[in-house]
Amino acid sequence: AATEQMTALESLVRRAVREQPVWDFHTHLYPPSFGTPFSGAANGADPKGLMLWGIDELLTYHYLVAEVFRVVPARQLPYDDFWRMTKSEQADHIWKHLFLERSPISEACRGVLTTLQRLGLDPGDRDLQGYRGWFAQQDPNRQIDRVMEIAGVSRITMTNAVFDDNERQRWLENQDVGADSRFAAVLRFDPLLCDWPHAAARLTEWGYPVGPTLDDEGVEQGRRFLRDWISRTRAIYCAVSLPPEFLYDGMEDSRISSQVLRRIVAPVLEETNMPLALMIGSKRGVNPQLRDGGDMVGLADVASVARICADLPRNRLFCTMLARENQHELAVAARKFRNLMVFGCWWFVNNPSLIDEITRMRVELLGVSFIPQHSDARVLDQLIYKWDHSRELIANVLVDKYRDVAATGWRPTEAEIRRDVRLYFHDNMANFLASP
Amino acid sequence: AATEQMTALESLVRRAVREQPVWDFHTHLYPPSFGTPFSGAANGADPKGLMLWGIDELLTYHYLVAEVFRVVPARQLPYDDFWRMTKSEQADHIWKHLFLERSPISEACRGVLTTLQRLGLDPGDRDLQGYRGWFAQQDPNRQIDRVMEIAGVSRITMTNAVFDDNERQRWLENQDVGADSRFAAVLRFDPLLCDWPHAAARLTEWGYPVGPTLDDEGVEQGRRFLRDWISRTRAIYCAVSLPPEFLYDGMEDSRISSQVLRRIVAPVLEETNMPLALMIGSKRGVNPQLRDGGDMVGLADVASVARICADLPRNRLFCTMLARENQHELAVAARKFRNLMVFGCWWFVNNPSLIDEITRMRVELLGVSFIPQHSDARVLDQLIYKWDHSRELIANVLVDKYRDVAATGWRPTEAEIRRDVRLYFHDNMANFLASP
Amino acid sequence: AATEQMTALESLVRRAVREQPVWDFHTHLYPPSFGTPFSGAANGADPKGLMLWGIDELLTYHYLVAEVFRVVPARQLPYDDFWRMTKSEQADHIWKHLFLERSPISEACRGVLTTLQRLGLDPGDRDLQGYRGWFAQQDPNRQIDRVMEIAGVSRITMTNAVFDDNERQRWLENQDVGADSRFAAVLRFDPLLCDWPHAAARLTEWGYPVGPTLDDEGVEQGRRFLRDWISRTRAIYCAVSLPPEFLYDGMEDSRISSQVLRRIVAPVLEETNMPLALMIGSKRGVNPQLRDGGDMVGLADVASVARICADLPRNRLFCTMLARENQHELAVAARKFRNLMVFGCWWFVNNPSLIDEITRMRVELLGVSFIPQHSDARVLDQLIYKWDHSRELIANVLVDKYRDVAATGWRPTEAEIRRDVRLYFHDNMANFLASP
Ligand SMILES: [Mg+2]
Ligand SMILES: [Zn+2]
Ligand SMILES: [Zn+2]
Ligand SMILES: [Zn+2]
Repeated sequence: AATEQMTALESLVRRAVREQPVWDFHTHLYPPSFGTPFSGAANGADPKGLMLWGIDELLTYHYLVAEVFRVVPARQLPYDDFWRMTKSEQADHIWKHLFLERSPISEACRGVLTTLQRLGLDPGDRDLQGYRGWFAQQDPNRQIDRVMEIAGVSRITMTNAVFDDNERQRWLENQDVGADSRFAAVLRFDPLLCDWPHAAARLTEWGYPVGPTLDDEGVEQGRRFLRDWISRTRAIYCAVSLPPEFLYDGMEDSRISSQVLRRIVAPVLEETNMPLALMIGSKRGVNPQLRDGGDMVGLADVASVARICADLPRNRLFCTMLARENQHELAVAARKFRNLMVFGCWWFVNNPSLIDEITRMRVELLGVSFIPQHSDARVLDQLIYKWDHSRELIANVLVDKYRDVAATGWRPTEAEIRRDVRLYFHDNMANFLASP
Repeated sequence: AATEQMTALESLVRRAVREQPVWDFHTHLYPPSFGTPFSGAANGADPKGLMLWGIDELLTYHYLVAEVFRVVPARQLPYDDFWRMTKSEQADHIWKHLFLERSPISEACRGVLTTLQRLGLDPGDRDLQGYRGWFAQQDPNRQIDRVMEIAGVSRITMTNAVFDDNERQRWLENQDVGADSRFAAVLRFDPLLCDWPHAAARLTEWGYPVGPTLDDEGVEQGRRFLRDWISRTRAIYCAVSLPPEFLYDGMEDSRISSQVLRRIVAPVLEETNMPLALMIGSKRGVNPQLRDGGDMVGLADVASVARICADLPRNRLFCTMLARENQHELAVAARKFRNLMVFGCWWFVNNPSLIDEITRMRVELLGVSFIPQHSDARVLDQLIYKWDHSRELIANVLVDKYRDVAATGWRPTEAEIRRDVRLYFHDNMANFLASP
Repeated sequence: AATEQMTALESLVRRAVREQPVWDFHTHLYPPSFGTPFSGAANGADPKGLMLWGIDELLTYHYLVAEVFRVVPARQLPYDDFWRMTKSEQADHIWKHLFLERSPISEACRGVLTTLQRLGLDPGDRDLQGYRGWFAQQDPNRQIDRVMEIAGVSRITMTNAVFDDNERQRWLENQDVGADSRFAAVLRFDPLLCDWPHAAARLTEWGYPVGPTLDDEGVEQGRRFLRDWISRTRAIYCAVSLPPEFLYDGMEDSRISSQVLRRIVAPVLEETNMPLALMIGSKRGVNPQLRDGGDMVGLADVASVARICADLPRNRLFCTMLARENQHELAVAARKFRNLMVFGCWWFVNNPSLIDEITRMRVELLGVSFIPQHSDARVLDQLIYKWDHSRELIANVLVDKYRDVAATGWRPTEAEIRRDVRLYFHDNMANFLASP
């Protein structure tokens, strides 16, 4: 009977995790209004369009590009030769070397297979042309609905990089470009904190005159810039990706990044009641020949994040880190600061063995008060595999945890389990966005 | 037959781990002679008493205080409002938010449930008033016996902080305050190594005149202070908790902490044949509003510990570290120094997934030559869950390890398994305390 | 049916891993031509011989020496007393304390048992004299064949330390000393990168005059030295072991080690088309009284390795690191650089729980493009247990990974699985050695 109850509990938990729609905290996805280089069954491909989808994008995801260069010697294929190929040639190359000549057991390879299967295609066919044919018949807009349905995603959070010319232009040219209720905007402005001279030059050029050092007038212009873009994008939060070297030493820290944070970013976010998301630990371009795939990881300084939380109690921070070795300390930091919401397993830690260990650690240290995962999808269809794999791993952890409390006689009800899972997949994010 | 033998072996191991009484290496528990703010069925509550027990203390454990602040927004409950509540109101608040409005699956929440269950109460009732009623009928002194019996703890090690006025006064006023055979004293003197100016001022005030720098006379006074307090408390070892920044650079290191260690602490411990316990990695008060729960973790320097072991070969060191990322290096350091005894999974690593990985690593690297766990209990009744959970995790690891050697044809006998488990839970500590 | 297919898949994977002969990437083993201090049934023991084998060597492996000192107090057995014992007395001592008076559940102890069992002896007998008798009847040369057969090792890579007088002399005296087809040579020259003054003095003494700083003439002599020894040993690659403090800061880095790397090592390796193996993280001699067992671990700088890969694109690097906390970043670095081949779980991370986590992480991040393991065996017979244990752990990971892709409908064939396992155990190494 005890065993039966445990089995029933396990089923409940797995079902709740499977069925709970998720608000994806962070992606690089866009609605069709931002254009797509592959129009499928629709008209009007936009070569510089931002909405990526389809099998060729799946296969040329920068994770897989990085992997294929490992198995094809430089002599056989120099970087430049690869980049000169068409997208389909690149996809063919990756399919050949990572799927056929070796088994596709890396997480990024496996993800392509899961995606195909859940879309109703059969990976067992190994029929790349067939998959291409299927995608060519799909309408990109309807594919968004289909993928969200299959992945159980109720809302997709974009990353809207205001310092990216291609993207900025689209916002300026079309004030409704973001008006797709399936998507929420996030204002991303890395250069403000990472490269002030560059940021200052651009702001000045865009009508917000600021100097290389930060005086009161520069502060005011910086704030105005943020307010304008928050309003233009209707962002739900703001975000920056910071290198592992990022440091914040407290109220007296005169680094330009600390000044910008304290004087420009924090006040505007406080007045707009919006959290800031910090993604820390990506070391840009250690191998520029890999392009998007050329960033590495480095150990970041969790103590700096703790100091920000302490110094800016009227601000709220989302935070994720890239280094495995920061995960424990970051979870501990979240125990210390109610204005710190840990989220997701990012990029190089978004792998099954690491998702398992990180999620386990977080549940043990933080209960249900964190955001277990985000997809970071760059290609629409990836939502399927990212969430499929993560749901299974998160469910494994939760099954263990509910069984542990059930073993004491505590009886979690189905409603309670669904409530907890909703917190993980939706409400923690929504509440943290809403509540000061 | 092979499977049957393995099952029999597993039972043997689990039974040995369950039945072996443990000498708890480190707690913050006290006998009734130190007073208790909650007298239960007995007379004479002492509001500043040091013996903590009962459901309200279990629920307001600083681990849970930290957790509840995460789920109740600052607007809804500022820190000060929480601290103005009575203990029972705080407990009600935590029960509501961490047990009823969310499922109690964090390790600290689960611990309360295990404790209740093993005390004969039913967590399934969710009846906080009922639990309170039960505790109110218990005698604190007899509760110690009951908890030790249930937890399988044969002796409790205290932490006797000589720089804590409340505690010091009790030792000065009653020379038998520590004379409870269930408890052993440990002299703890963090300020000696962490804050010499403060320590020196107090010592001077207490009749051991020492200056802000360390001259020969100061060394002699410092030694006399230690000798007096070791003798007064009948301490079985001495202990300090050190911040992650603690460094020891060798015999020429002129840091005041290194001088105190080499000239005061080490010689007195050598003459009294007593080890020193180092607990390294706690960063004090990053969020003072959480009070006891406001400390964070930081990466410590294992190389410094190795240097201490090398420079002070006639001293013996117990050591535990708070950062997950120090655990492997610390276990390796213990392979290098016979005068280094690694112990326990401390605070933020005292969680199932981390106990499992740390214990596994240590068995693989150190065999049976370490102390797998201590409870760090601050509330008497926590002994139950801390040991219940740890015993299960340690048994899981040992089952795997005995099975591995049994698979080679080696046949561990019941007596051998019990001997090994006794080493882990009692004899390694006893031997290391005894043997020069 | 799905379950049956999964069970069949699991069998296939386990069989492929068990049956695939491995080219052992890194050992400290030698053929009989280098002499052996224990001649067994053959004639002519050489007290300074380099080929180690037999039960007494197994038991006095420095891993076990380190472990026995932990359990025998210093008072009972000072370091010197141990070192004054004969090899057999040391073995007796270790057998008594680590096998009989405690259960042999550390990984190093367990390894002895696995080795005995697979050699046809019964660890259940606990008959050290009997095991000795058996080894005494074996011929060392034939024992190599037997061990390679049992361990499934097709070729053994040596480590040929040119700065070791004993070994260098043997190469100089006998030009065919390395001519045993079961073994491949590797030129190892740590002092060139770690201790240039010492290296320079030796090179000068040996007829390659170089000064304490590096001028053009010194560079030429250094290159000539490397060429001569590569040619003499017929090395298949070159190798260095570097301390955790090793740093390489880029093309402008004027550290002597960086100069030697860029100007001497890299050009010679490029002209001979040979990779360099970096083993980083061993802190030498923290406890010299443990001799070979006295080294510790320290966190190394993965960013330096990344810079080397970027700055020397015409060179190829094998790399392993000793610290657990470097493993994730190192695997990520390998994603960035096609000229970086990660290999093995070294020394303190060559334990089941760590092999499992490292291998899992690597498969997820790198697919089949790395070298999962090397034995690091110093005693011939250790090949058996090192590979037995690792094969089982690697198979566990691969079973999970093939099952994951099979769950999508992808059907890995037996031929494909065998091809992948051959890549892991042989071809990745062979290809990386061959291909520029
Ligand atoms: Mg793990
Ligand atoms: Zn992203
Ligand atoms: Zn404590
Ligand atoms: Zn080696």
